[in-house]
Amino acid sequence: MSDDIRPHEVAVALPDSPDAGVYFIGRIRTPWKTREECPRRGDADGPICRLEIDPRWAEGLRGVQPQTQAQVLYWMHQARRDLVVQAPRRRPVVAGTFALRSPVRPNPIASSMVELIGVEGTTVLVRGLDCVDGTPLIDLKPAPSH
Amino acid sequence: MSDDIRPHEVAVALPDSPDAGVYFIGRIRTPWKTREECPRRGDADGPICRLEIDPRWAEGLRGVQPQTQAQVLYWMHQARRDLVVQAPRRRPVVAGTFALRSPVRPNPIASSMVELIGVEGTTVLVRGLDCVDGTPLIDLKPAPSH
Repeated sequence: MSDDIRPHEVAVALPDSPDAGVYFIGRIRTPWKTREECPRRGDADGPICRLEIDPRWAEGLRGVQPQTQAQVLYWMHQARRDLVVQAPRRRPVVAGTFALRSPVRPNPIASSMVELIGVEGTTVLVRGLDCVDGTPLIDLKPAPSH
Repeated sequence: MSDDIRPHEVAVALPDSPDAGVYFIGRIRTPWKTREECPRRGDADGPICRLEIDPRWAEGLRGVQPQTQAQVLYWMHQARRDLVVQAPRRRPVVAGTFALRSPVRPNPIASSMVELIGVEGTTVLVRGLDCVDGTPLIDLKPAPSH
């Protein structure tokens, strides 16, 4: 995590205390050890990644179906939270945080759609993620039907 | 919020403390005053709802574009968090929490895709939500491109 700020970026003071608490329900295991190694976005043909669910929540996996689309929410624990205007390194824009999908945001929660490959004990195998190895998992749910 | 548990449901002890903190960045104003009044799911032709952003984060709205699809994350503050197996009232299933999109889950975070209608000061007008009036907002970002 870095406190560097690029030209045109704007940081704000964070609130003194959070309004609610998140439980990490497990960890995500991926082939990418650093943010720099991560692909730009998840690929449905990419490698299988593992959601290792904490035993406390194991029964929550009852009925989770392979060969379905699922939504994974995770906590981008390496991202700073105080930038409201950003100048992303890879794009020639300066924009508000809510106009970007940057990991840097007040609540660093990512949502990814994945293909659910299978369940082995308390581990869920999925394709389509792009996050760093060890990322905290906060939810798994079926993809919305349309 | 209720501690009632239906037949076949399973509750677990919650962790002693959270692993991370969420900031409520604003409130969602909708026409529905109770969970019972809320529609079953958001409708792109439904009423306009308002995301009232806290002034702290106002600059984050720079560049937010009307007539686009956006993703809204919110905190389902009325939902209990300790059920790992649920028997939803409206469906004849008993299933693990991670096989359901129920609001009842370890981290009661909802993700909705909405149509972004416009921005008026620190208020964002959207269609497609289905949550109760006063729901805490935790994020707004552009819909993922495919």
